[in-house]
Amino acid sequence: MKKAVILVSGGLDSTTCLAIAKSQDFECYALSINYDQRHKAELEAAKAIATHYSVKEHKIITLPMGEFGGSALTDHSIEVPRYKEKEGIPVTYVPARNVIFLSFALAWAEVLNAQDIFIGISSVDYSQYPDCRPEFIETFEKLANLATKIGVEGQSFKINTPLSNLSKAATILEGIRLGVDYGKTVSCYQLSADHKACGYCDSCGLRKKGFLEAGIPDPTNYV
Amino acid sequence: MKKAVILVSGGLDSTTCLAIAKSQDFECYALSINYDQRHKAELEAAKAIATHYSVKEHKIITLPMGEFGGSALTDHSIEVPRYKEKEGIPVTYVPARNVIFLSFALAWAEVLNAQDIFIGISSVDYSQYPDCRPEFIETFEKLANLATKIGVEGQSFKINTPLSNLSKAATILEGIRLGVDYGKTVSCYQLSADHKACGYCDSCGLRKKGFLEAGIPDPTNYV
Repeated sequence: MKKAVILVSGGLDSTTCLAIAKSQDFECYALSINYDQRHKAELEAAKAIATHYSVKEHKIITLPMGEFGGSALTDHSIEVPRYKEKEGIPVTYVPARNVIFLSFALAWAEVLNAQDIFIGISSVDYSQYPDCRPEFIETFEKLANLATKIGVEGQSFKINTPLSNLSKAATILEGIRLGVDYGKTVSCYQLSADHKACGYCDSCGLRKKGFLEAGIPDPTNYV
Repeated sequence: MKKAVILVSGGLDSTTCLAIAKSQDFECYALSINYDQRHKAELEAAKAIATHYSVKEHKIITLPMGEFGGSALTDHSIEVPRYKEKEGIPVTYVPARNVIFLSFALAWAEVLNAQDIFIGISSVDYSQYPDCRPEFIETFEKLANLATKIGVEGQSFKINTPLSNLSKAATILEGIRLGVDYGKTVSCYQLSADHKACGYCDSCGLRKKGFLEAGIPDPTNYV
């Protein structure tokens, strides 16, 4: 069985991505990251999802990204803005986040001798984060093969982004087809203590739009 | 004053690299990493060196690389081998280490609005680690500019590797010219409790060779 490391945040996209990796018969290793994000509740969701999909192993690692801040997600003194379509890169952008996340996925993949890494990014309905674009992923894949012993020895890593060209609605429809329970996923950047989504942050905005366009009821519990 | 983030391990190369950045009039931000390495003593050296060079700020961050292991440096059950010249990639190779280290340097640089990152790697006298080669650095630099808000907005990051084409002896001679006190630096992968270097690991081997070839007395306290 081929092994894959899947970045699982507990959100809609990464859960769909895990369901896709499972449907492609990968032995799945889920990696979740506690990075001082506001929305740590997503990690509880990630645990439940990893268990649901019977991944071979689920690691939750802690990274000190709050040390650097520079984002409304890791510096809790910066307010989370309302979602606006096509407004440039919002303050929820976290400097170098996907380079960091993928580099840890790469480290684990190399140790496991897994050649596939999955990340649930999209370049259609997304928050304009530069590290979600196909040219970023292509370059990271090239880097992965230059940086590692496995790469030098002639094997190669593949960074799989099955959602890259899908709208949020198309992602949801693909997930539904694969039996994903979106009620288990958390998208909101600032979930309340009683687990209600704010309904207005970037992530809620994109999620709502996706369910609406897909014509599927959104199971999220909004404020 | 231009700002730079410098990866400072406490070893010979990164200390020389810091001295070079200082000599080029950068305002220096030193980043050191506690990554479950055997040779944590290098972090004490890094502190002393950062203080000596009056860096603007010194951060020591903790990364859970021992979670993955796969290296004699992060999995303490794997023995550190003796240095042998030209023997392929040794087990002291740490999967994805320089991708991870540079990605955190990049995150900090973006938050600081610093466009320069320094890393003291060489592709002449080195342990054959793939992530020390110029093609790796060129690709990381390209990635840095694709991954970040600053990159998208038209500024660009530079990954400075002033030692890339220098032998260990040439690095030492450059450091001596700049007044580096190599007695403050720690290279050994397995320093003893009373701060004596083993004298036979990759890192000691390269260091000894460098001082010998440079015709400079090695200030290291060997076992």
